[in-house]
Amino acid sequence: MSQPLERVLILGTGLLGASTGLALRAAGFTGSITGWDKDPKQVETALALKAVDVLCDDPMEAAKAAQVILLATPVYAILDWMELLSSVLQPDQLLTDLGSTKAVITATGNRLFNQPGRAGFLPGHPMAGKEVSGATHADAALFRDAVWIFTTDPWISQQREGDLSPEAASLGFEWMQWIRAFGCRVIELEPARHDELVAWVSHLPQFLSTALTALLQTELGDAPELTAVGGRALREMTRLGASPYSMWRDVAYTNTEAVAAAIHALEQRLAHLRENLRTPELREEFEIANRFRK
Amino acid sequence: MSQPLERVLILGTGLLGASTGLALRAAGFTGSITGWDKDPKQVETALALKAVDVLCDDPMEAAKAAQVILLATPVYAILDWMELLSSVLQPDQLLTDLGSTKAVITATGNRLFNQPGRAGFLPGHPMAGKEVSGATHADAALFRDAVWIFTTDPWISQQREGDLSPEAASLGFEWMQWIRAFGCRVIELEPARHDELVAWVSHLPQFLSTALTALLQTELGDAPELTAVGGRALREMTRLGASPYSMWRDVAYTNTEAVAAAIHALEQRLAHLRENLRTPELREEFEIANRFRK
Repeated sequence: MSQPLERVLILGTGLLGASTGLALRAAGFTGSITGWDKDPKQVETALALKAVDVLCDDPMEAAKAAQVILLATPVYAILDWMELLSSVLQPDQLLTDLGSTKAVITATGNRLFNQPGRAGFLPGHPMAGKEVSGATHADAALFRDAVWIFTTDPWISQQREGDLSPEAASLGFEWMQWIRAFGCRVIELEPARHDELVAWVSHLPQFLSTALTALLQTELGDAPELTAVGGRALREMTRLGASPYSMWRDVAYTNTEAVAAAIHALEQRLAHLRENLRTPELREEFEIANRFRK
Repeated sequence: MSQPLERVLILGTGLLGASTGLALRAAGFTGSITGWDKDPKQVETALALKAVDVLCDDPMEAAKAAQVILLATPVYAILDWMELLSSVLQPDQLLTDLGSTKAVITATGNRLFNQPGRAGFLPGHPMAGKEVSGATHADAALFRDAVWIFTTDPWISQQREGDLSPEAASLGFEWMQWIRAFGCRVIELEPARHDELVAWVSHLPQFLSTALTALLQTELGDAPELTAVGGRALREMTRLGASPYSMWRDVAYTNTEAVAAAIHALEQRLAHLRENLRTPELREEFEIANRFRK
């Protein structure tokens, strides 16, 4: 009854979308991969790299023909696509995504999909990326040894209740197998737990690097030769300062509370360290940090 | 009259001291390199790696026999050695160092050395390092493409006034040539300017990484498997969290004001970003940060 996966559509062929196409090919996927991007250059690059093998002019028509549709755009564009596609996808199709926050997307997915007579929606988030965007930086190995999170508990329980078609469920499990074949560790988390966790381990490092880099630009931007003095430590701590606003705006809007709490906690930790530069508390902070790295 | 450099003594054969020995050999230095460390394991490792070729039991006696004595220890140990050595070194000898802060060291050097009848003191600081310490991590290429700062203005002006012996001056210029042969760019800064600049580009990234890493240990330390979720961004931003307190304590103590000002500025920048997670100011912060990376 279940058809093996042979037709994938990637909507958004930037860094992550094109890397997913390349990773599918590297893992041995022989079906068709259709690509679309609002920026024609991105999809042409993806085609040239063989991350996709078919371009489409009409993504809505292409979506009707695919078995798995991957949304590889920033969060708000994912939500827009979910609304648009909810009226055209069929129960034997699976929609999945790469969005950086999962609470809003998962709730929207369960409202629009994962119900009798509707397509399946499998919310996903690969913990991989680069500070540069665009298909030209796509890499089949981007996901190797990374964690790929699915916030699937509601999806699986929907399936138990029979609201998900066997075809969509089968496509979902096959999709996860491909992702394991990329070299990923697949883990499942509750959407709220996902958003809280990534606020600490992904969003805080990003916003922190942005704040540090913007501060250094303000302080030293008129003497850029001096930044060469900083060496590897400075390069690493400011690498994420090159990350694009377009992606992180959506993270800031859809995970505001958890991100604000993490930033505020760091402000307090910095103030504590600053007030203790000449007390034994400084040793304590270094020793706690040393433990994390072990 | 001037003797070419043939006898170097390295006091402190940890990561930087042993790497300097290896870099000298890689650059073609054929003279003797004597090593001493308060930890016998460090100097034995340095010997095994051929970073030094002679061990000494009595560093004060060894210092009398060397032309250039390199102090490669944390800042307070450098200051202690400077006091000890000031009574035994002769005008035809050169003392230099790798200390992370330069205002206190340079002032001490000009008080104890760089005067008629005394040895020369050349305050230096290579902008290179690792988050791990010890001779086992020594690397001849550690300094390649790095900046090596000398806070030499007072040293050069002493020379102009004739307070520095021609032998010590010659050894200083030869030492700088070796450092250029390591692949370093040599720059000279006023000591106060050095300390202010490194507060931004070196000390702030370190203390920030320590605060972030300690915070994550407090928040997530009981669930270390979750830190695997963070990927490359988290690894980079917390790498310096492994740095040893023993070195950074001396930085905190000898550059307190500039470091505290930089940390405080970052606290304010983070608060600004946090308060603007949902306003157009967030775009502005990303755009300023993007400019720094160009």
